[in-house]
Amino acid sequence: MSRQINLASRPSGWPTADNFDLVEVELPAPQEGQVLVRNLFMSVDPYMRGRMNDAKSYVPPFKLGEPLEGGTVGEVVESRAPGLAEGDLVLHGYGWREQVVVEAARVRRVDPIEGVSPTAYLGVLGMPGLTAYVGLLDVASFKEGEAVFVSGAAGAVGSIAGQIAKLKGASRVIGSAGSDEKVSHLYDLGFDAAFNYRNGPVTEQLRKAAPDGIDVYFDNVGADHLEAAIDSLNTGGRVAMCGAIAVYNATEPSPAPRNLFLAVGKRLTLRGFIVGDHSSRMRDMIAEVGGWLREGRISAQETVVDGLENAPAAFIGLMRGENTGKMIVRL
Amino acid sequence: MSRQINLASRPSGWPTADNFDLVEVELPAPQEGQVLVRNLFMSVDPYMRGRMNDAKSYVPPFKLGEPLEGGTVGEVVESRAPGLAEGDLVLHGYGWREQVVVEAARVRRVDPIEGVSPTAYLGVLGMPGLTAYVGLLDVASFKEGEAVFVSGAAGAVGSIAGQIAKLKGASRVIGSAGSDEKVSHLYDLGFDAAFNYRNGPVTEQLRKAAPDGIDVYFDNVGADHLEAAIDSLNTGGRVAMCGAIAVYNATEPSPAPRNLFLAVGKRLTLRGFIVGDHSSRMRDMIAEVGGWLREGRISAQETVVDGLENAPAAFIGLMRGENTGKMIVRL
Repeated sequence: MSRQINLASRPSGWPTADNFDLVEVELPAPQEGQVLVRNLFMSVDPYMRGRMNDAKSYVPPFKLGEPLEGGTVGEVVESRAPGLAEGDLVLHGYGWREQVVVEAARVRRVDPIEGVSPTAYLGVLGMPGLTAYVGLLDVASFKEGEAVFVSGAAGAVGSIAGQIAKLKGASRVIGSAGSDEKVSHLYDLGFDAAFNYRNGPVTEQLRKAAPDGIDVYFDNVGADHLEAAIDSLNTGGRVAMCGAIAVYNATEPSPAPRNLFLAVGKRLTLRGFIVGDHSSRMRDMIAEVGGWLREGRISAQETVVDGLENAPAAFIGLMRGENTGKMIVRL
Repeated sequence: MSRQINLASRPSGWPTADNFDLVEVELPAPQEGQVLVRNLFMSVDPYMRGRMNDAKSYVPPFKLGEPLEGGTVGEVVESRAPGLAEGDLVLHGYGWREQVVVEAARVRRVDPIEGVSPTAYLGVLGMPGLTAYVGLLDVASFKEGEAVFVSGAAGAVGSIAGQIAKLKGASRVIGSAGSDEKVSHLYDLGFDAAFNYRNGPVTEQLRKAAPDGIDVYFDNVGADHLEAAIDSLNTGGRVAMCGAIAVYNATEPSPAPRNLFLAVGKRLTLRGFIVGDHSSRMRDMIAEVGGWLREGRISAQETVVDGLENAPAAFIGLMRGENTGKMIVRL
């Protein structure tokens, strides 16, 4: 027997507890080529909100009455597949459930890292870390000496993007977040300036935080943050459009940057990206970021929630910005 | 004696005749190194609207009480400079006046082209032609087999951009314009589909004109056209942001594409550019587009207005879309 969380209904606007259904299921015994995995930690991520809609997107929607999915670290309990043994640590996409029987080809064995929690594979050394790495370096073509603004900077992706920018020689790194506690956390991470976007118009706060303008904007928020960034971007500036958490739950078309036409005179480039297109860079990211992690030069904060039954609340809390760093559910 | 048009006042919103002042001035005799040029044709272009504001931009504002400037073709009447002789055809930036005395270094001698009006140097073989060429090929990285949408497609830049796309093997070229006459002109130019944006919502008209979506959008308009393009762009699509004539005369922040967040999932790139950064490509453009012009494979329509006194009306008419192809004032 295992427990899992099914999609009960599709949210209109903000998701609520009613959209999720905690159910008990009987697992089949693993067949030849399959493994039984006990999940240890699962990830909740903003992109999951899009998959709750019945809309064509870059990932197919979750199905009603079936379990949600997402990045998960687990331990092999029973293996009928060569190359995987009981006790192996594995990474896979079958989250939102306590145990899963799955083809061995769908899981990836990972090495435990001395002194680092296996949850790192869901954050700084996983998809969020790769998002930060390729968004900053490849999509926005960040170069040493440039000034970088990161929105949602206390989140899993933003906090890593800002720290990579500092480690790579940014002249100034500015972050925005949604509480004074998070702002002070950003200073602890080494950001040069940070502000609470709830304390006043973003455009004015960013102008003050970046008096010489910015060269790169790492956008996790969209809406007013993007408008503020366009205002502060210097000639030739670049925007990595990673996500727009401000609009994921909007039921109306959302406010857009009314100053977008400035992109012409400032020769700006705005580029949207999806981390899945950049998996060939995973090896580079793990080598470089993993090195900083072992040396203690990069900090990967986590907000950990206990129990599968609390996963929906963790996800809704994530959308509301209740996490600092990576939001994880311990199973 | 010469006549010129001075900037009398700065417009707020739409320019009016009152913003311009036709005055008579006495010209000095050309000094050593200078030439006296009688202007034959001058260009009016949308970018001039920005220079009428007292605002920092990529070109300095026009000065109050002084003549406006702009691309002009003239004939040398008197030369005190080596390399330039009476009767030479020259290109320079001292428009909005009938004659000018200027340093020889500020004019460029151009060759008359057999069977082609010298006004081509203000349009298809000049700045608008280069804008179309680099915007499509360099900024938007257009590739053979792709579908292209051009807004303001009956204008000096748009009409050339659309024709270059066809000549370079676009699978489909769609244009928008502001009258049914212009739409039928676009079909004459070889566009595969065209629509009048005044006849209905741009998003719906574009969806119908491009049922398989578009890969490149050449943006001369901004606002609702950009929103429609984002809606129709396929994954990996690119936007060359060339101008936003819809917002040049706006006194309020203008409507922005409310669907800009789609750029993430669709991996779109939006890039603003200024033709002045790309002058190194002028030689390539003239070779390629000039060849098509001589072979009659590209058509460069002009709307010609007579007399310096009518230049303000020509400029205001341009902002209202009264031109088809390049708007020219014959002096």
